[in-house]
Amino acid sequence: MVSIVATIKVKPGQEASFEKVAKELQDKVAANEPGCEYYRLHRAPEPATYVFIERYKDQAAIDAHRKTDHFRALGKEMGQFMDGPPQVLVLQEA
Amino acid sequence: MVSIVATIKVKPGQEASFEKVAKELQDKVAANEPGCEYYRLHRAPEPATYVFIERYKDQAAIDAHRKTDHFRALGKEMGQFMDGPPQVLVLQEA
Repeated sequence: MVSIVATIKVKPGQEASFEKVAKELQDKVAANEPGCEYYRLHRAPEPATYVFIERYKDQAAIDAHRKTDHFRALGKEMGQFMDGPPQVLVLQEA
Repeated sequence: MVSIVATIKVKPGQEASFEKVAKELQDKVAANEPGCEYYRLHRAPEPATYVFIERYKDQAAIDAHRKTDHFRALGKEMGQFMDGPPQVLVLQEA
């Protein structure tokens, strides 16, 4: 099992727009990716900061996720609301 | 649902000892805390660095966790292997 913690800064005032697209992606992942066991958006304590916590069966499931049409399209759409690239931390279960 | 990402630096050479106690805690949480849905130790890419990813039904489940005998005892035991206090990030599901 592999987990990902992705920290995202959003442009001030764009939180609602970002959340809308992020939750759309969340639903698409749940409906289309059996290799992904958990994929949820969280609000961090800092303003305009979000964290996706994700869990996958293995690296192949991560690779498959990144190639999906929904991740590519909605990832791009989320990008317009982001204040810089996400900080992605890949963690192996010990 | 509330998630916690706790990043822990371990004293070099103490990884195996730390992991042993951390996994004992992991098992105790799974066996004794219905309010905790997920509690897993992960290895971070940086050396001697671990991340606990935890998910609870609500803040009350977190409070209950922190008062358990197993968390208090094993948390203390883990402490001797740590290189400074854990960095604890509490995240609300969006």
